[in-house]
Amino acid sequence: MPELTVDLGDRSYPIFIGSGTLSDASKLTPYIRAKQVAIVTNETIAPLYLNKLKSLLNDFDVIDIVLPDGEAFKNLQTLETVFDGLLQARHNRTTTLIALGGGVVGDMAGFAAACYQRGVEFIQVPTTVLSQVDSSVGGKTGVNHPLGKNMIGAFHQPNAVMIDTDVLGTLPDRELSAGIAEVIKYGLICDPEFYGWLQDNIAKLMARDTDSLVYAIHRSCADKAKVVAEDEKEAGIRAILNLGHTFGHAIETHVGYGEWLHGEAVAAGMVMAAKLSCRLGAISEDQVEQLQQLLKQANLPVLPPEGMTPENFLEIMAVDKKVLDSRLRLVLLEQVGKAVVTSEFDRGELDSTLLEMCSC
Amino acid sequence: MPELTVDLGDRSYPIFIGSGTLSDASKLTPYIRAKQVAIVTNETIAPLYLNKLKSLLNDFDVIDIVLPDGEAFKNLQTLETVFDGLLQARHNRTTTLIALGGGVVGDMAGFAAACYQRGVEFIQVPTTVLSQVDSSVGGKTGVNHPLGKNMIGAFHQPNAVMIDTDVLGTLPDRELSAGIAEVIKYGLICDPEFYGWLQDNIAKLMARDTDSLVYAIHRSCADKAKVVAEDEKEAGIRAILNLGHTFGHAIETHVGYGEWLHGEAVAAGMVMAAKLSCRLGAISEDQVEQLQQLLKQANLPVLPPEGMTPENFLEIMAVDKKVLDSRLRLVLLEQVGKAVVTSEFDRGELDSTLLEMCSC
Repeated sequence: MPELTVDLGDRSYPIFIGSGTLSDASKLTPYIRAKQVAIVTNETIAPLYLNKLKSLLNDFDVIDIVLPDGEAFKNLQTLETVFDGLLQARHNRTTTLIALGGGVVGDMAGFAAACYQRGVEFIQVPTTVLSQVDSSVGGKTGVNHPLGKNMIGAFHQPNAVMIDTDVLGTLPDRELSAGIAEVIKYGLICDPEFYGWLQDNIAKLMARDTDSLVYAIHRSCADKAKVVAEDEKEAGIRAILNLGHTFGHAIETHVGYGEWLHGEAVAAGMVMAAKLSCRLGAISEDQVEQLQQLLKQANLPVLPPEGMTPENFLEIMAVDKKVLDSRLRLVLLEQVGKAVVTSEFDRGELDSTLLEMCSC
Repeated sequence: MPELTVDLGDRSYPIFIGSGTLSDASKLTPYIRAKQVAIVTNETIAPLYLNKLKSLLNDFDVIDIVLPDGEAFKNLQTLETVFDGLLQARHNRTTTLIALGGGVVGDMAGFAAACYQRGVEFIQVPTTVLSQVDSSVGGKTGVNHPLGKNMIGAFHQPNAVMIDTDVLGTLPDRELSAGIAEVIKYGLICDPEFYGWLQDNIAKLMARDTDSLVYAIHRSCADKAKVVAEDEKEAGIRAILNLGHTFGHAIETHVGYGEWLHGEAVAAGMVMAAKLSCRLGAISEDQVEQLQQLLKQANLPVLPPEGMTPENFLEIMAVDKKVLDSRLRLVLLEQVGKAVVTSEFDRGELDSTLLEMCSC
């Protein structure tokens, strides 16, 4: 499987994808600038892969910073412990951070790299499907605020992304499903052929067939890299990557960070976006039904959490990052395989969609 | 007095300097992007100038976020209160932050702007000499960590800098002196003619003669703008702006943030850098003596705090942001009016300088 490149001029970087990537020091070390390396990981991943990664780094001065596991810890307080570790070890501007873990670790290590001494370099080593296909690529970093997800952060591109599909062997089923939600998203927003492939191969993916996983991860990263290269800082087209995320973030914020996995919230959110797109006449009820079936085959939720009301959604969605001059913007489907970002939708249909979904 | 421009391509911005700048809405409002404005200020400045600033912003939706006053509060905890205020008021990506205050407010509001929703715009309205001539210009933002000053931050350029010299009427004498330390710095590092002017006019500056203050602030900003335009992210020449700061930050960290004003620590630090430069044969003892006299006329300290040891300095300086691959780099004088950044100095002379200064 050839490597991919995220094409951003002098900030371009490679994505290595395959079985055994993490056994190959020659892929990793060219992207480390100087002697100091700080591996940021969490309590779950450290016992599994920290020593393996360290064994590739014998020629470097390596420290590790082990964070508690979970979205509930993706905040400024935990971030400060990363700075504590870097300063206690006297890491300077030439240090390279390596994020070893899922999306939470990647987002926090990346944001720490963006801010430490006003910016140091970092490498993503994502260990979940979700982080491999989504959060490790594209340079979005940050932490949550009690009033909104990912509200504090920076655009900070990594030097490289190293995806070893072997690590997925230890991924819990629930996390696999959550990652597949983002994979399905790429088909929906910009890759109808891939969406068809997913409908045919979802069972293989859920059975962790290696070839199918490598293909799906590679194709997802390729789709994402293309969008990011067009619009690094989300001035326009990049926002389509957030299909289902406005609804999904509202769910995550409402239930408390970590209660629902990000991918689970996105799955339910994509159904809501599809339902609204259907009400607006862009896609058919059959297509919404097909999406729900696909998500169910991936063991993903297709409804918001019990008890969550339309008011809950609207209140949290009002601070969404896509809101401009108080107008809510949403990612909707123009057709299956093509998404648009728009504030030009019938607000009544949004209300009806929320009412329908919240009373199921 | 004509306005200055910080020339950074599509991120260029103006610096307005003069008496009455803050009475002129037509200067400020063109730099505000949309309806939402958040003024970040502190408890000391709010009663003095918040309403005046707000009166220029009748056409906007304005909130204010009032922080406690002082370097001791320049940390991630206080920063979080800025995010709290922005999210509670549902400010979105088009909001404009206005920093109304000294260097601490400017650094924190600027860093909040860099991070809020991964980056919003901001305007600097500095109210101290120090922030007018230094921290408001050039886009360095950030907060302190217990183990090092300004260790967490971002480069984030403002849309504009509005300097009203009238606000200096309420500036305490000690703060005036602290600001003059940075003014003297510009003469020392890159502007020998200005250094001569300062020696002739220091009494007028300390007596708050308006024309002299406007001239000194304008010339300092012009010197800084030139250096920043050459090297925005401090890959090289920009580091000369830190003359005295490596020693100075060590003092601030050692005594506890806020005990010494930043400018006071920089004054003592500049003497230390000059002494070391003299030991290395670059400048004469007379020139060191002249610098000390000038600083004394500005009521600034010329020695480190009592009881601080060479070991205290070396320990804190080891995590200075200019350290590269464990080698300490310092800003030294090649001559009066010309600074260089170098790690090529006799380490023994540094030790002797520290020993001499710490035992005075």
